[in-house]
Amino acid sequence: MPETETHPLVIVGAGPAGLAASIYASRYGVEHIIIGELVGGLITETHLIDNYPGIEDVSGFEFSQKLTHHAQKYGAKIMPARVKKMKKTGSGFKMETENGKILKSQTVLLATGTRHRKLNIPGEAEFFGKGVSYCATCDGFFYKSKTVAVVGGNDSAAGAAVYLAEICEKVYLIYRKGKLRAETFWINLIEKNPKIEVIYETNVLEISGAEKLQAIKLDKKHNNTETLSIDGLFIEAGSVPNLDFAADLELEIDAEGCIKIKPDSSTSVEGIWAAGDITDGSDKFCQVITACAEGAIAARSISNYLKK
Amino acid sequence: MPETETHPLVIVGAGPAGLAASIYASRYGVEHIIIGELVGGLITETHLIDNYPGIEDVSGFEFSQKLTHHAQKYGAKIMPARVKKMKKTGSGFKMETENGKILKSQTVLLATGTRHRKLNIPGEAEFFGKGVSYCATCDGFFYKSKTVAVVGGNDSAAGAAVYLAEICEKVYLIYRKGKLRAETFWINLIEKNPKIEVIYETNVLEISGAEKLQAIKLDKKHNNTETLSIDGLFIEAGSVPNLDFAADLELEIDAEGCIKIKPDSSTSVEGIWAAGDITDGSDKFCQVITACAEGAIAARSISNYLKK
Repeated sequence: MPETETHPLVIVGAGPAGLAASIYASRYGVEHIIIGELVGGLITETHLIDNYPGIEDVSGFEFSQKLTHHAQKYGAKIMPARVKKMKKTGSGFKMETENGKILKSQTVLLATGTRHRKLNIPGEAEFFGKGVSYCATCDGFFYKSKTVAVVGGNDSAAGAAVYLAEICEKVYLIYRKGKLRAETFWINLIEKNPKIEVIYETNVLEISGAEKLQAIKLDKKHNNTETLSIDGLFIEAGSVPNLDFAADLELEIDAEGCIKIKPDSSTSVEGIWAAGDITDGSDKFCQVITACAEGAIAARSISNYLKK
Repeated sequence: MPETETHPLVIVGAGPAGLAASIYASRYGVEHIIIGELVGGLITETHLIDNYPGIEDVSGFEFSQKLTHHAQKYGAKIMPARVKKMKKTGSGFKMETENGKILKSQTVLLATGTRHRKLNIPGEAEFFGKGVSYCATCDGFFYKSKTVAVVGGNDSAAGAAVYLAEICEKVYLIYRKGKLRAETFWINLIEKNPKIEVIYETNVLEISGAEKLQAIKLDKKHNNTETLSIDGLFIEAGSVPNLDFAADLELEIDAEGCIKIKPDSSTSVEGIWAAGDITDGSDKFCQVITACAEGAIAARSISNYLKK
């Protein structure tokens, strides 16, 4: 028989939303456990955070450590694991982790965030780790003085291009539209950086190489050729909510797969709250500050619910 | 003729919501000015903040300085002034400060927060500054080794009682209901503190004294008398939105006088956004973290609006 533990609240996800919720839950006296695959969440991969009000110029890794420490100071228990399956029981919820633990709880906070969206093009899987990356901060350093391309036009793509330009010889930023949708802050940095060249209205069709990635094929000529010779390709094509494990719950989601939440961060299923990038809250502005706020709001609402 | 300046955005209020909005607005390249009576906002008065995820054990004053510095790093202009009047013009908004400046703008973010609610009882005005205070952090030290009372049952009241117990000989916490509505965190600290005595289901009717406050009259006997001899009374009876100056705008407000906002922090009046304690957003959970998130959301929405 696998080991079973029971908690009033299980927080699934150990990123900013989950950790902020944990701080508030602890202060409300709500006993809980956090189950998270990646302690600190996807923000740990971010090179530099400078828009979390009150904390200037901090690496994603250091920021995650600050948050984790803050939660642990109040006694947060963090189980580094992935929830495989979750279902509703008579009195609450039951979940199973990939390492075989069974947990039961009265309430659940889903804060599993998102994962990198793939381009789903030939060569993407084959050259993953051999030139294809979804994380400039993690892998950028392997491309010192080389030529790389970033795919995407949002803040993450722009931030990756600026970061990579500090390391690489040349950075192409390839975007399918005619205008980047990143913050003006990033666009200004890109425009004045001679190492970055933006290729607009262009898609990447294919990734090719031998042992390692050597070139990509574009759907439009650039300097008279559709083939761009590069050493690394960083894909920043948005994100997909991590919600597969909770399919049995039949939560109400929006067109992009984000969980619909009410003002108190509760979901369409009684006993389940959601916070952070996985939700449709905060005008879908996926920032650390909004994720933390949703986590705090959820914790208060859960505390009130458990008191009833 | 008074001096007039024009900005795409005027942020009214220099607390967490306004400063967070400023950081985001700057990063979006939205030129703006912050007009605020109290730089840092009401949180500057808070003795200790330990629930802003990622920053542990910081005084309200130090936290406000961090936020202000963060905003100023991106070039924020802060005008320490109070807006007296604001009205809609053909193309935007016009406002006048108490020190006679006239400002015009295309958009406005209202982030003026709240002020302390008064009890409106005899002696309250008379003994203000002579025993009556609305800020334990500001005035607590004047009551070293004395006997004080705190009125209220929320987090602010509980926090004030715990803080005052570090300084004073004896602290009464007087609340009109039978159970405090503060976080369990605070309730636990209060229960194990021998200096704090909670008087439930009781109201303060009158404040009396000679040159200084000497006693308060209760609506119920405590230890066989309705008169409680104390040296100081700290009133923590909630808060009132600071919105008088904007009466001409006819913004939609809720029953408690808070501005109704949409998910993107916009209000019922085109061109006006609102963020922080003054709104009905974030499930009305008035925290620094939720104020900052609303400010960030508003800044993005304003940036998009101005681009149109």
